Amino acid sequence: MSDSDEPVRAEEKTTGRVEAFSDGVFAIAITLLILDLRAPIAPPGTVPGAAQQILLHQLAAMWPNVVAYLMSFAVILVMWVNHHRIFTVVRRTDHAFLFWNGLLLMLVCIVPFPTELLAKYFLTPAAKVAAAVYAGHGLLIAIAFTIVWRYATRSDRLLVPGRKAEVTKLTEQYRFGPLMYLVAFALAFVSAWASIGLCLLFAIFFSLQGFTQRGQG
Amino acid sequence: MSDSDEPVRAEEKTTGRVEAFSDGVFAIAITLLILDLRAPIAPPGTVPGAAQQILLHQLAAMWPNVVAYLMSFAVILVMWVNHHRIFTVVRRTDHAFLFWNGLLLMLVCIVPFPTELLAKYFLTPAAKVAAAVYAGHGLLIAIAFTIVWRYATRSDRLLVPGRKAEVTKLTEQYRFGPLMYLVAFALAFVSAWASIGLCLLFAIFFSLQGFTQRGQG
Amino acid sequence: MSDSDEPVRAEEKTTGRVEAFSDGVFAIAITLLILDLRAPIAPPGTVPGAAQQILLHQLAAMWPNVVAYLMSFAVILVMWVNHHRIFTVVRRTDHAFLFWNGLLLMLVCIVPFPTELLAKYFLTPAAKVAAAVYAGHGLLIAIAFTIVWRYATRSDRLLVPGRKAEVTKLTEQYRFGPLMYLVAFALAFVSAWASIGLCLLFAIFFSLQGFTQRGQG
Amino acid sequence: MSDSDEPVRAEEKTTGRVEAFSDGVFAIAITLLILDLRAPIAPPGTVPGAAQQILLHQLAAMWPNVVAYLMSFAVILVMWVNHHRIFTVVRRTDHAFLFWNGLLLMLVCIVPFPTELLAKYFLTPAAKVAAAVYAGHGLLIAIAFTIVWRYATRSDRLLVPGRKAEVTKLTEQYRFGPLMYLVAFALAFVSAWASIGLCLLFAIFFSLQGFTQRGQG
Repeated sequence: MSDSDEPVRAEEKTTGRVEAFSDGVFAIAITLLILDLRAPIAPPGTVPGAAQQILLHQLAAMWPNVVAYLMSFAVILVMWVNHHRIFTVVRRTDHAFLFWNGLLLMLVCIVPFPTELLAKYFLTPAAKVAAAVYAGHGLLIAIAFTIVWRYATRSDRLLVPGRKAEVTKLTEQYRFGPLMYLVAFALAFVSAWASIGLCLLFAIFFSLQGFTQRGQG
Repeated sequence: MSDSDEPVRAEEKTTGRVEAFSDGVFAIAITLLILDLRAPIAPPGTVPGAAQQILLHQLAAMWPNVVAYLMSFAVILVMWVNHHRIFTVVRRTDHAFLFWNGLLLMLVCIVPFPTELLAKYFLTPAAKVAAAVYAGHGLLIAIAFTIVWRYATRSDRLLVPGRKAEVTKLTEQYRFGPLMYLVAFALAFVSAWASIGLCLLFAIFFSLQGFTQRGQG
Repeated sequence: MSDSDEPVRAEEKTTGRVEAFSDGVFAIAITLLILDLRAPIAPPGTVPGAAQQILLHQLAAMWPNVVAYLMSFAVILVMWVNHHRIFTVVRRTDHAFLFWNGLLLMLVCIVPFPTELLAKYFLTPAAKVAAAVYAGHGLLIAIAFTIVWRYATRSDRLLVPGRKAEVTKLTEQYRFGPLMYLVAFALAFVSAWASIGLCLLFAIFFSLQGFTQRGQG
Repeated sequence: MSDSDEPVRAEEKTTGRVEAFSDGVFAIAITLLILDLRAPIAPPGTVPGAAQQILLHQLAAMWPNVVAYLMSFAVILVMWVNHHRIFTVVRRTDHAFLFWNGLLLMLVCIVPFPTELLAKYFLTPAAKVAAAVYAGHGLLIAIAFTIVWRYATRSDRLLVPGRKAEVTKLTEQYRFGPLMYLVAFALAFVSAWASIGLCLLFAIFFSLQGFTQRGQG
């Protein structure tokens, strides 16, 4: 976006706005499935005991929506934390970076869809299709994260100086991401349980990365 | 997220982004129930007097949606103000803090659901179920606020220096939160009115805390 | 929120977050009615001429939704610009200010509802009801703006120093707001056209205020 | 918004808030069509093979929604990047600028609507109507971008000093925007394919502008 002889102020402003826009998109993506948690419309009834039973059953029947919301929120939170970590070492952006970041955001916003699909079909005979869509989407996200990170670290131009150790660690972390999700995607054709179990393990793996970092701080 | 020998600039940037992301999520949560305030579709009619009566009745029938919106907005506003107060004394975050804050946001976004449930069922024989869900969710939020606050204040590492008095006051405020909502939850099995009355008292209590603070400024 | 001996940095941070949260809420409110602009589902047909006619008619029938979106966007934009102007002279907030600002935001988010009501009923025999709801809501917004402004200017504690001229001008502008909308509300019981015409005049009046200011810059 | 003898701090704050508000609106607009990607409700079935086939067919039938989301996201991303570029050379705003920027945002939020229309009608006999609406809306956006840019560059008052080269380049870029989309709009009455093909070429053209800039950095 800017010549290398730009003053420091302009650089910070640029990064700030990419992050603000990304935060807005993440905030919308992470809350999307809450739109499905609506108060059920129960026949009012006149006997308290029976009316309570009906409402409880209707609330219990909402479990796929609740699971989808919690899982989608947790997974997108892990992605946001990782996006946040990337930007702690990125001090400026350029034109192409804005588009690679945009590609990542485009995929992040889709997360609620395969998650809802999974919640609704995981216990049905069509579970493998839902698992393949879920793991396949995870693969696309892993590739997008890798591209954003590789582009940011191609040279020192976009990076905060003096953070080599953290950059190396993140590079290692992202190295195997696409391969991991490729395995989960292939597994979906064999077993939905194995594929999704692996995806959840990966999410835990990526959420734990920041802790090892802090331990060395 | 950051070594303790980080320069000041990087720390502020980190906190800023957590707050911006949280603000985005709060803004979505607080406006969620406005989606239910839609213009009713009245049969047009030809006589002005009758057409006006029909529209007025349809508007009046929307009261549970209006009450749910106002109550949800007010309660989430109190939560946002408290979140805001916490961050006035937090100067930096670490990896775990991002997740505890995320857990809190996940629960905040759910607020419109039990509120809508309450507005629709409080005057029905199933009121106790709605009250138990509402107070139970309040309990989870109180626990999450307590965790976020306890984690931030475990050591001085994440805190703005020289704000001891305010930190102590907030610690006292959050100490009894979970217990208070546990009582309200238990009461729901006895009386929906008592349980929800207590929840509203707590919301007023938490919204008043900031005033006592200002009085000492 | 903060003792008067707080360093400057903390004050700015506080104002920044209130504005960021307000901006998020304004952004949601201003885009709300775009959710009603959906592609119509036309019978595909096989003859191009007929299929095009059908689609054109369906698009034309969406005019109340288009008018409601444009009007709601324009009116909330004027409110955002005024909110923005207030915060150019407010340098810090306190606990009560957060709640008065929250009350204003709560009312701003409702704007799409009376606007949609107006677009759908203004040309029907129930026009007066829609106009009364619209002007009545405008009255509430005018009162909330007045309260926020009065509270901010009660003393110099919350204000940016050295902006007396601008503060005085804004005080004059807000002085007659509630009275103006009270007249529009009363007029709704006589004539929907007169009431809404007056409301639009007021919106233009409030959007022009900033220009007179600039002329003196 | 501010006298020319304002201190630097106040100016930056003003620009920051316009950008934050714009980012919020862009974030909502860019994610709007994701609301249409919902898990299909398939008859569960009992035979895995058949259940999987049904779900796959239902997912495949969602292609117009997927195309509309991807296309709308990509086009609004290009607009955001251009909005971002404009603000890298704008250091302050005034009252009229806020409204011109608001007009642009109002049109950006509409983008999902003609895009969805196009995805649903491009392969039907009513394609020309959808293409005309799409290109016509593109024309309005191009005009709004031109107005915002012309207004910002009328004098040096709103611009960051010392960025003449970039300002000249952006002026050249925006010069032919409205004319280009006018051609695409006229073409829609002849051929939907030619019109939309041209619109996509323009989007690519505007997304490539930033690269030529970087090449000279």
